Amino acid sequence: MIDPLSRWTSYGEKPDYAGPLTFGGVPYTQDPADLRDADVAIIGAPVDDLVSDRPGTRFAPRAIRSASCPSGANLETKVDAFAELRVLDFGDAPVVPADPVRSHAAIEETVGQALSAGTVPVILGGDHSITEANVRACAATHGPVGLVHFDTHTDTGSKVFGVEMSHGTIMRRLVEEGRVDPERYVQIGLRGYWPGEEEFSWQARRGITSLFMHEVRDLGIREVVGRAVVAVGAGPVFLTVDIDVLDPAFAPGTGTPEPGGMTTAELLWAAREVARRCEVIGADLVEVIPTGVGSADVTSLAADRIVREILGGLALHRKQSQDRKEEQR
Amino acid sequence: MIDPLSRWTSYGEKPDYAGPLTFGGVPYTQDPADLRDADVAIIGAPVDDLVSDRPGTRFAPRAIRSASCPSGANLETKVDAFAELRVLDFGDAPVVPADPVRSHAAIEETVGQALSAGTVPVILGGDHSITEANVRACAATHGPVGLVHFDTHTDTGSKVFGVEMSHGTIMRRLVEEGRVDPERYVQIGLRGYWPGEEEFSWQARRGITSLFMHEVRDLGIREVVGRAVVAVGAGPVFLTVDIDVLDPAFAPGTGTPEPGGMTTAELLWAAREVARRCEVIGADLVEVIPTGVGSADVTSLAADRIVREILGGLALHRKQSQDRKEEQR
Amino acid sequence: MIDPLSRWTSYGEKPDYAGPLTFGGVPYTQDPADLRDADVAIIGAPVDDLVSDRPGTRFAPRAIRSASCPSGANLETKVDAFAELRVLDFGDAPVVPADPVRSHAAIEETVGQALSAGTVPVILGGDHSITEANVRACAATHGPVGLVHFDTHTDTGSKVFGVEMSHGTIMRRLVEEGRVDPERYVQIGLRGYWPGEEEFSWQARRGITSLFMHEVRDLGIREVVGRAVVAVGAGPVFLTVDIDVLDPAFAPGTGTPEPGGMTTAELLWAAREVARRCEVIGADLVEVIPTGVGSADVTSLAADRIVREILGGLALHRKQSQDRKEEQR
Amino acid sequence: MIDPLSRWTSYGEKPDYAGPLTFGGVPYTQDPADLRDADVAIIGAPVDDLVSDRPGTRFAPRAIRSASCPSGANLETKVDAFAELRVLDFGDAPVVPADPVRSHAAIEETVGQALSAGTVPVILGGDHSITEANVRACAATHGPVGLVHFDTHTDTGSKVFGVEMSHGTIMRRLVEEGRVDPERYVQIGLRGYWPGEEEFSWQARRGITSLFMHEVRDLGIREVVGRAVVAVGAGPVFLTVDIDVLDPAFAPGTGTPEPGGMTTAELLWAAREVARRCEVIGADLVEVIPTGVGSADVTSLAADRIVREILGGLALHRKQSQDRKEEQR
Amino acid sequence: MIDPLSRWTSYGEKPDYAGPLTFGGVPYTQDPADLRDADVAIIGAPVDDLVSDRPGTRFAPRAIRSASCPSGANLETKVDAFAELRVLDFGDAPVVPADPVRSHAAIEETVGQALSAGTVPVILGGDHSITEANVRACAATHGPVGLVHFDTHTDTGSKVFGVEMSHGTIMRRLVEEGRVDPERYVQIGLRGYWPGEEEFSWQARRGITSLFMHEVRDLGIREVVGRAVVAVGAGPVFLTVDIDVLDPAFAPGTGTPEPGGMTTAELLWAAREVARRCEVIGADLVEVIPTGVGSADVTSLAADRIVREILGGLALHRKQSQDRKEEQR
Amino acid sequence: MIDPLSRWTSYGEKPDYAGPLTFGGVPYTQDPADLRDADVAIIGAPVDDLVSDRPGTRFAPRAIRSASCPSGANLETKVDAFAELRVLDFGDAPVVPADPVRSHAAIEETVGQALSAGTVPVILGGDHSITEANVRACAATHGPVGLVHFDTHTDTGSKVFGVEMSHGTIMRRLVEEGRVDPERYVQIGLRGYWPGEEEFSWQARRGITSLFMHEVRDLGIREVVGRAVVAVGAGPVFLTVDIDVLDPAFAPGTGTPEPGGMTTAELLWAAREVARRCEVIGADLVEVIPTGVGSADVTSLAADRIVREILGGLALHRKQSQDRKEEQR
Repeated sequence: MIDPLSRWTSYGEKPDYAGPLTFGGVPYTQDPADLRDADVAIIGAPVDDLVSDRPGTRFAPRAIRSASCPSGANLETKVDAFAELRVLDFGDAPVVPADPVRSHAAIEETVGQALSAGTVPVILGGDHSITEANVRACAATHGPVGLVHFDTHTDTGSKVFGVEMSHGTIMRRLVEEGRVDPERYVQIGLRGYWPGEEEFSWQARRGITSLFMHEVRDLGIREVVGRAVVAVGAGPVFLTVDIDVLDPAFAPGTGTPEPGGMTTAELLWAAREVARRCEVIGADLVEVIPTGVGSADVTSLAADRIVREILGGLALHRKQSQDRKEEQR
Repeated sequence: MIDPLSRWTSYGEKPDYAGPLTFGGVPYTQDPADLRDADVAIIGAPVDDLVSDRPGTRFAPRAIRSASCPSGANLETKVDAFAELRVLDFGDAPVVPADPVRSHAAIEETVGQALSAGTVPVILGGDHSITEANVRACAATHGPVGLVHFDTHTDTGSKVFGVEMSHGTIMRRLVEEGRVDPERYVQIGLRGYWPGEEEFSWQARRGITSLFMHEVRDLGIREVVGRAVVAVGAGPVFLTVDIDVLDPAFAPGTGTPEPGGMTTAELLWAAREVARRCEVIGADLVEVIPTGVGSADVTSLAADRIVREILGGLALHRKQSQDRKEEQR
Repeated sequence: MIDPLSRWTSYGEKPDYAGPLTFGGVPYTQDPADLRDADVAIIGAPVDDLVSDRPGTRFAPRAIRSASCPSGANLETKVDAFAELRVLDFGDAPVVPADPVRSHAAIEETVGQALSAGTVPVILGGDHSITEANVRACAATHGPVGLVHFDTHTDTGSKVFGVEMSHGTIMRRLVEEGRVDPERYVQIGLRGYWPGEEEFSWQARRGITSLFMHEVRDLGIREVVGRAVVAVGAGPVFLTVDIDVLDPAFAPGTGTPEPGGMTTAELLWAAREVARRCEVIGADLVEVIPTGVGSADVTSLAADRIVREILGGLALHRKQSQDRKEEQR
Repeated sequence: MIDPLSRWTSYGEKPDYAGPLTFGGVPYTQDPADLRDADVAIIGAPVDDLVSDRPGTRFAPRAIRSASCPSGANLETKVDAFAELRVLDFGDAPVVPADPVRSHAAIEETVGQALSAGTVPVILGGDHSITEANVRACAATHGPVGLVHFDTHTDTGSKVFGVEMSHGTIMRRLVEEGRVDPERYVQIGLRGYWPGEEEFSWQARRGITSLFMHEVRDLGIREVVGRAVVAVGAGPVFLTVDIDVLDPAFAPGTGTPEPGGMTTAELLWAAREVARRCEVIGADLVEVIPTGVGSADVTSLAADRIVREILGGLALHRKQSQDRKEEQR
Repeated sequence: MIDPLSRWTSYGEKPDYAGPLTFGGVPYTQDPADLRDADVAIIGAPVDDLVSDRPGTRFAPRAIRSASCPSGANLETKVDAFAELRVLDFGDAPVVPADPVRSHAAIEETVGQALSAGTVPVILGGDHSITEANVRACAATHGPVGLVHFDTHTDTGSKVFGVEMSHGTIMRRLVEEGRVDPERYVQIGLRGYWPGEEEFSWQARRGITSLFMHEVRDLGIREVVGRAVVAVGAGPVFLTVDIDVLDPAFAPGTGTPEPGGMTTAELLWAAREVARRCEVIGADLVEVIPTGVGSADVTSLAADRIVREILGGLALHRKQSQDRKEEQR
Repeated sequence: MIDPLSRWTSYGEKPDYAGPLTFGGVPYTQDPADLRDADVAIIGAPVDDLVSDRPGTRFAPRAIRSASCPSGANLETKVDAFAELRVLDFGDAPVVPADPVRSHAAIEETVGQALSAGTVPVILGGDHSITEANVRACAATHGPVGLVHFDTHTDTGSKVFGVEMSHGTIMRRLVEEGRVDPERYVQIGLRGYWPGEEEFSWQARRGITSLFMHEVRDLGIREVVGRAVVAVGAGPVFLTVDIDVLDPAFAPGTGTPEPGGMTTAELLWAAREVARRCEVIGADLVEVIPTGVGSADVTSLAADRIVREILGGLALHRKQSQDRKEEQR
């Protein structure tokens, strides 16, 4: 295990751009044994083989770590996720370029190691296809999961551009394989021109809940997230955030951007809120294509903060559980 | 005529980045005869000779086509413009670099061919000066038109930086030539520091309606567009969208950007709404300066989607007319 | 003194990209004597020695001037600051690279010259550390000042990354030196993960007012600015705007960006409102890192407009004072 | 068939940035029948599924066409390839994203159509893996071919990063499948740190000729190309140019750049010389990752010129053959 | 007159990025009277109305000044041009956007003022069309001039893309108007595919000397420049440098780049050598399109250094003349 | 210690963009004890406080590691430095932003740890000021060292822009402190306009050898390096490479670029040759300002390769010594 802070004399002196590259400056390990005392394992999944338009997300795990800021309490919630939770950077899954099958197996295995150690895995993509591996590993541990899915697109095609194994088909596969419970599956932020009738009627038949971007516009993000939390209900939940749910103004670095999307203010709150209120047992953040250095890459920066707010939500969730338990005594 | 889809075995397999470059992957023709069965003709006007600040819009028609996504129903309206309307890409007007007079004549002629064939011409600029050519052609066919004009600037100077033939004088020229009916002319999104008293008092004398960005802020986009639709009333309408009506966060690639502008969510809805409710007989989208490749160029991407929503509004307009006719029977 | 307009035959013919580089095309002087008839002195402070993350703001004074548009009345307020106030560009303070002590002394002296001449100095940073020099000069003239501070961060650390002289410690130093009256010190737009409990409790003990970004979200910018104006009350006020109070979508060019921030529409209004309602005796705009040419650099463009709206507010403030005086007669 | 020049009144008036997007402004067709009278068919192969590092070459065929300049005689050779040869743009092969097997089949079939029509196919990649499809099609028509291969890397791995189907293994596959005659296979420009002993000894056993970049430095490009032409000898030759043979200064837009490479001056001459002296029956240009608009993308610009010089070499080759025949009479 | 150094306590303390923006930090004046004691007047000509491809050179005069470094002796020649010659920045000509006729008149008049004051004007373009205005002013003072012309293109078209007034026709116009003596006109660095036979035979008939890039390659820059100096002979010479004579690797920021060009090492030496050996009475540097901030914009940086080497050559020329005169005594 | 390869099943499967970020994928340690068996320690020094123009080199150590390619034998020398030498990544020195004194102490201490363990430290800057710390540490171990210094600038000012502690004064300080033996100090690649007579006469008095860029042009890199090796002679040598010795075409990402510089082909050979022939006991590579992601950042890529060639030279040097020893037996 490597602790990035060990060379600096006191906490808070390490600049973000110095020292070993880890998410948020947390310790780094490749040894699953180290995860036993941890609450959260950050995992990189640097792949982009299965995209239908612009590639480049293979560079995202490093870029998100580079844009990452050090620990501290969120000024709104007053909660410091890194103080409440023990977060470790578990490194990247051993992916292989141009071999999505082996890469997905590697991701699934690495996520599985984190789950076996009792941590909540939080995976930095990579394109959205990695969610198939992530959820498979989670379902193997927790059984069929609920899914809260922030995205422009439903990713429930049977094929995308004629291809079955694609970042646009994973949700259908996960539902059909029984790994996601469709009645506990909620999509938030849908807009644009895809998919079509076939996919939506497939979704409707299975009881999947779709919350569109025009509903966010008309009802507000609080109402929409409230509905999502109700729809997903009790039980284990996987939280997946496709960065393209943001408007391209806020996340220009992504492969299939769609104007008319969320603001970061909305998404940061929403991601935290879902993690606070639901029983999140795993999460991922996908589809970032890095375009710059450090925090100058605003998409990677947004991605870092979304992950931090998910961690903040996890910390709040645990606090609430503890408070409730104490009240019950 | 060239059909981009012809080489792919089934619809939806052609990637956006492959095949001949046409708007939205629709068929391409340079033959006016092909337009006879069409509803909409997309036309490129790659010129930027008459700008007062940053040039570069000559590259926009290709960039907007490159950022273009394939057909599909809008997830809010459930209408697929490309299924409801026959849209053809009629190519670029035969412009000549550094000769705005000949280029404008070429644009006017090409738009005129589209009108003669009975289509609604939708022109991809180019700088805003092209609207003079576009509206001339429309007025030659339809008589003086109403004008819905999304923009930061009124473009009603008598001169701009000392020059008469400029992207900032066209609206005055069109009004004074009798091609735009000033009482049916509405401007939406005005802000910043131009023009001044002289221009606004000229506008007031002629009955032009100005809806400012601070009115969008205070009243909401729905109320503002509602007022615009009332002001423009019945009769043929040309819809012109200067991309700089958007905030630079949403459209950084433009020549005279002005902070404090619209979001794409507002403009996409507003452009569609105008096309749905008014009798739009022509439209253009101007002042995009491309800065990147494919959909990574967020300004060109926004431009593509604005045009698509105009097409969506045209499709809804026709549907409503048909529904009304059927009701009347 | 150099007048950029002198070579052009009539006002309004000079393009923004031609002629000597001055803020808004106003006359340029390096002679304090020229300031005597002026109301506002624009001063550049091109330094970035004391930043904790990405440097580059040394290039901002030139970039903001390059993004600058010519005079004209704001379309909302109908007030042309350059017509109401005599604004001169007083050039850059004679800073020295890699020597922050000498550079800060040079800035303080140059700002002092502007104050001695009776102008309101408006300083273009540079990193936020320059506010220490700016406010020192102002307090030497006006006594302890009130402070309206738009920022993501409080900049009230006792050390930042282990360093005392930093862009993150200036506000604490100014308060502790008695140059800022903490009871008349208001922070607006705070968010993210810094600072922590130590700093906030130091602030609380001194009566500093913090208005968070989540309050802007929940209460609206008008309410928040209203509270700020009340808190700062009567007496001389320094207005400091760190461009990172904007969301990175609106101001990507800054050294420590934080998602979830203000829109330019909000900040342009708010900066003008503070200048209109308070007794602003000096102002600065800091932390812009230029990334492009002219107005294509959207962060520098936003910075120019924020400064212009501060000038607009100063003009409105003077008008109101004059109106009130006339009423009293 | 679409002729880009048809709308302009005389040859030479069409700007490079206007009209339908085709290579060099030549006519475009998707109909193999049109190729019968042609000498050269330009084909796009927009794929990048099989790369080991940075992806993005899927955008290259369009970008190279966008950077393309109009016809004209080379100022050194006085030969206008477009006047001597009938060149058509045969469009893109119907590739499918994320499905390299189907995409390669599509490329092979499209190249085969061009060969069946009697043209020399010149393919714009795409990553280097497309050369496998291109040469397969050529070998099906012409039998085992000689290969002149400009590249930093040999691309003769048995696996690259653990993967068999890769842009780094194609040359071994082509040799082992008998489609390339190893004794007529010459590599030019090799440098850097890959491959290793295993690959070079495999090459040596088969009689492949390697000409290293340090030989270009020490002997000059003329001597090196002279040796290459001798080594490849008489018979059909496929010419493949990986843009990364250029130094990154000249071709920054590529996926595995390696400093210390060729200048464009060297490569333009060398590519033309090979085409002039050998019996080139097909060619490709691969591994361009576009990064900008039109000719501002210097890598795509270089790619366009390399292809033009190959065409120039083909024209010179034909002229020489004709001259020789006439002499023999 | 403004002296950028006046605020700094000793020479050499002013950073390049601070103080008023002038070429090389020399004093700035808009008053022709100030030029009387000067040797060289730097003039900006920020126009790009007459280009045939990518525009943007209007931003170059400022960008070249921003990339400019302070005075100092060249390490090869040991001559400090700014110490030997009195150089002033005479500002920009009062151009008007979108009105090339008025802009060219303004440039011609401003250059004329510099000539009347007895200085050598050195003009920073702008596109190459400004050379027409520059040489007209020079010929009005000095009679028909010799011309040394570094460029990829001859710029001797009668029309370019169908247009007479263009950056590609100026040299023909200047010759035909009798302002350039064709027998004393030398072109250096020609390459690519333009112009064609008509232009070259027009050139040949008038005795214009063309030195191609392949001659630079085969003979070396020293031999080529030697031939140029002989061809241009005695008498007044205008030196015009189109930055696109450089390879795009060295000057990516230009509108019609052509691979296979000069290195900066070659051009810096050559420009200085021409100025040292010929009787240069005026010079310009054109076709830079800025793309970045300060010296990060490598094309503007190269442009600054080319101008400095021209100044260095002028200083050496004067020294040699003085030495010769002293010898003759 | 962390081994990046440990997760991949066989050597060569780890993509460059996956796994922990270390130089060349070598193991990472922060424990000096691990260095005992190592030959070379790579150390990052992410600082840029003391620059006179563009900052940003603080991001270089990570960027160079990101651009780094895996192990392999150089195709010219057939030597794989990583096989011959045990290279470890010793991480970054614990620098503190905006505190150059503490940062330099931290760098000196970290380099000292590497020296104490018996390794050759190879430091990735950072700006050139770090060489002062690096050489101090080396001289403390080895006594006064010889210095081979590739650079545009001599860095021997007594002050730069009025400042003593600067990236432009370090070499004078090192000589005057007796840490560099001036008679064994050679500068290679000098050009441009700095420094002046004072500095060069100081150098001459001390016997420092200056080899200018025009000597590289006239004599060739081999002759120049040959002279350098003779001048530096026997004894311990520190090798420092300022990336700005390269032409900006090859290394655009640096703070004080100067046109007319070396090619990477020249520098890669020269750096290796110095390391092969001299007794190099430490080396650094400085002044890289990263501008992109992974190997798309051509300056960081060049930097990685220069370091690798230094390592290659070290490996060759050791081999030669061993061979010589064996011969002597």
